[in-house]
Amino acid sequence: MAIPHPAPLSGASYSAVELAPSDDLVWMLDQRQLPHEERYVELRDAAGVAEGIRAMVVRGAPAIGIAAAYGLALEAHALAGAPADRFVAAMRAAGELLAGARPTAVNLRWAVEQVLGTVADLAARDDRARVIAEHARGIHRDDVAACRAMGAIGAKHLPDRGTVLTHCNAGALATGGYGTALGVIRAAREAGKEIRVLSCETRPYLQGARLTTWELERDGVPVELITDGMSAHFFARGEIDAVIVGADRVAKNGDVANKIGTYGHACLARLHDRPFYVAAPRSTLDPATPTGAAIVIEERSSDEVVRIGGALIAPHGVHARHPGFDVTPARLVTRLFTEIGEVPGERAFELMR
Amino acid sequence: MAIPHPAPLSGASYSAVELAPSDDLVWMLDQRQLPHEERYVELRDAAGVAEGIRAMVVRGAPAIGIAAAYGLALEAHALAGAPADRFVAAMRAAGELLAGARPTAVNLRWAVEQVLGTVADLAARDDRARVIAEHARGIHRDDVAACRAMGAIGAKHLPDRGTVLTHCNAGALATGGYGTALGVIRAAREAGKEIRVLSCETRPYLQGARLTTWELERDGVPVELITDGMSAHFFARGEIDAVIVGADRVAKNGDVANKIGTYGHACLARLHDRPFYVAAPRSTLDPATPTGAAIVIEERSSDEVVRIGGALIAPHGVHARHPGFDVTPARLVTRLFTEIGEVPGERAFELMR
Repeated sequence: MAIPHPAPLSGASYSAVELAPSDDLVWMLDQRQLPHEERYVELRDAAGVAEGIRAMVVRGAPAIGIAAAYGLALEAHALAGAPADRFVAAMRAAGELLAGARPTAVNLRWAVEQVLGTVADLAARDDRARVIAEHARGIHRDDVAACRAMGAIGAKHLPDRGTVLTHCNAGALATGGYGTALGVIRAAREAGKEIRVLSCETRPYLQGARLTTWELERDGVPVELITDGMSAHFFARGEIDAVIVGADRVAKNGDVANKIGTYGHACLARLHDRPFYVAAPRSTLDPATPTGAAIVIEERSSDEVVRIGGALIAPHGVHARHPGFDVTPARLVTRLFTEIGEVPGERAFELMR
Repeated sequence: MAIPHPAPLSGASYSAVELAPSDDLVWMLDQRQLPHEERYVELRDAAGVAEGIRAMVVRGAPAIGIAAAYGLALEAHALAGAPADRFVAAMRAAGELLAGARPTAVNLRWAVEQVLGTVADLAARDDRARVIAEHARGIHRDDVAACRAMGAIGAKHLPDRGTVLTHCNAGALATGGYGTALGVIRAAREAGKEIRVLSCETRPYLQGARLTTWELERDGVPVELITDGMSAHFFARGEIDAVIVGADRVAKNGDVANKIGTYGHACLARLHDRPFYVAAPRSTLDPATPTGAAIVIEERSSDEVVRIGGALIAPHGVHARHPGFDVTPARLVTRLFTEIGEVPGERAFELMR
């Protein structure tokens, strides 16, 4: 299926997730098929959206939050004519299903709570489904605006000419559009800076190889791929000027949960005296999580490590560990960029709601 | 093809490379097919052996040295009846071909020079081919003995019970048998220590996923697979007690060239206060290389990164960097184990010839 019509809300030529104008259909770009196939799946209920999040059809902390909000919009639409109390109960059940689809990213629960917070007040109104759909679109629009704002803030820190290392995909595909970490790179280039990117492939799921290269090449940003274990070598050779990544959750003390592998790059950046930047919307900042130690690290299946594209890469029966995320301590975060400002990692709480 | 007969020289049930008793045939276990298929290829001349080394049918610094020595044995056998001067010239040409098959491992050139050093004296003898074949087998036998000796030396440093991280494959498959880094682990277990292994998959070539797990499971050593980017996470969680790796070259000042990704683990071991051990035979120690900066780092093809098992993992046309090795500075090497003793990395020169 080609790109959905009308054009994506971000104005880009592709989108991780969109709600159809009729409010009864969600388009989700199947990121498991990228970069080889650009295919949108159609989802018609909250359960389908939750499954899309769980199965990583859509991934990236901000994008799964937006997807969950759209899932609630589908649920509200399907509940047309339901009595107010059944509407509220069903919306809350759908919210739990969506919020539980993945455990680490805080944006998911944040977005669900944003929408559910209005449900009781809206339950008796005839236009409740339309209001909730517009609320969800508002969360999406706000995310794009937040990415552009943090991009402008972060871009000032990048050199006029240099190479930036990134891990996983914190780009347009991980957000409502534009991206967090890749948004900073886009903003720097829009400001005339000659930034090139080293994209870590990001095993096991290969988001860096499959998604970051795809969206940067599409925008004409010079990008080269490396394996995750090569970053230390390129730090040692002086070929990396800065690291920038997104986040799945920032704890009150500034500890950052992000895709497994991030913490290693942060250690190596510090050891080689290079800045390590994190770009994330305020919806990723979680004052309710005191430190990184309180963050649930999703344990995913061994199978996702021992198979690549279906092919087994290890002897039959070998078990692989698969923590989906790791935690980078705040002291290793040179600056945290959000849509309302920037601070050193250890002062993250200053930007929290 | 099943395992060659007679049994491998190391006494194990498989072997990276063997010279047939008839001196006119080399069996090479095709490590590109492991772990799914245990297939031995047959090579009948030095050019075939050189191509096997270049194409990584056999890999691992000690193993490719042994293979090169066997390649020269094939050449000597083929030159039966050749006049002495032609014999010497042809052997030297074959030596250059073999030594040039891969640039980083010093064992390759070392083994070739060991054999070529005898060629002029032997050229007029009727039994020159048989003597050279026995010399090559001696290099192989010495390597197995060296692995066992460094295993016993290194095993004392491993805890009675604990988890050891390793990268790439420095095992029986990378040597004449038994292994360098994995030899230390084998020796520790033979001494009754409860050692389990975390094996880094070692992208791009996946030697850890394909080979290290294969040979450890075959020996009943508990092993779990991780992606290369996970090591930092497991260091932070206190789940790694020590790191042990092999080496492709150790410079006079103790800097260690080894498979790309090694240097990052060494940095992370230091940052998390865990020992980082290197096990290598003296043939890997190169007093002619003053420091790591003088080591030629093999640049391999982008294609080996962007394809896994033939399948493209990045958009068509994306370029990947592919340094085959990195250099770990001597100060990060807690101990260097060889067959004649052990020293802190910075005193490597004490063990050199």
